[in-house]
Amino acid sequence: MDNVRVVVLRLGHRLVRDERVSTHLALVARAFGASEIIFPEQEDLDVQKKVEDVVNRFGGNFKVSFGGAWRNIIKEWISRGGIVVHLTMYGVPLPEIIGEIRSRNRDVMVVVGGAKVPREVYSMATYNVSVTNQPHSEIAALAVFLDHYFEGKEFYLKFDNAKLRVIPSPSGKKVVSIGR
Amino acid sequence: MDNVRVVVLRLGHRLVRDERVSTHLALVARAFGASEIIFPEQEDLDVQKKVEDVVNRFGGNFKVSFGGAWRNIIKEWISRGGIVVHLTMYGVPLPEIIGEIRSRNRDVMVVVGGAKVPREVYSMATYNVSVTNQPHSEIAALAVFLDHYFEGKEFYLKFDNAKLRVIPSPSGKKVVSIGR
Repeated sequence: MDNVRVVVLRLGHRLVRDERVSTHLALVARAFGASEIIFPEQEDLDVQKKVEDVVNRFGGNFKVSFGGAWRNIIKEWISRGGIVVHLTMYGVPLPEIIGEIRSRNRDVMVVVGGAKVPREVYSMATYNVSVTNQPHSEIAALAVFLDHYFEGKEFYLKFDNAKLRVIPSPSGKKVVSIGR
Repeated sequence: MDNVRVVVLRLGHRLVRDERVSTHLALVARAFGASEIIFPEQEDLDVQKKVEDVVNRFGGNFKVSFGGAWRNIIKEWISRGGIVVHLTMYGVPLPEIIGEIRSRNRDVMVVVGGAKVPREVYSMATYNVSVTNQPHSEIAALAVFLDHYFEGKEFYLKFDNAKLRVIPSPSGKKVVSIGR
């Protein structure tokens, strides 16, 4: 699974109103091992800037990208052999399906939306997966999905070219600057 | 661990600005098995109403409560024998400490804040725990912590007195109304 690429497709982003939730989604995607988040509907430069600031300081190659119709993005992903996992409270419980998803060893596009995801997404997705069947948060669903998918690998990720690194501490804040 | 009570203490909530993030935190707390979220600083009736609407429809006994100084709430929790887990990107990595936290078999208060958590919280907490040492989202950190703490038990929770129940589906939305 080491060469599998995971990207996140964020549907339903609205300017200003969703800036904070979408920034959380992007930062979770990065911290938990995805390589990119795509916003097909709205080019939100504020979100992009915030995430790029984190990448610049904490390293790695995570990308925020825009554009294209979501339908085409999903179709193209599938036509290239990738699978599409749509996270929804209506889907199949994560523990029942994560083994199968992992064992396919394909690139994964994780689709996250808000309340109003078009019906078509459900039928286009390879898997509709629930992180509990209760209403909560797409941010939480994304994090828990990626944690299960990568089996905790995110706790040991190294981010290249970081300027700052946190040194885990039982009782305070330790951050080191890394000279280049 | 069946009788352990888990509550969430939300620091740094600001009216209007943080409504959505705090609502996500509360819904994650509920869906992942906590019994209560406490807002010590701001009485936000909009958040409370949104969460109570979910409880009313999807069941359970989750509570949103307000008031008290956070310092006293933490002190009282500890004096009653509970432990306090503060989630922070600077803390000890979750996989290194979750076994110990679980094995203590005590009531747990999970403290989540934003960027500006007072220094004193770090010293008062029984454990400062990181869900990766990267910046991302307190919502994601809470969900992953609770998932690991409960070892996936949240996927099998039953919520009493639900009016609606989602029936997991591979490709659509199935919701049943439950007559009472």
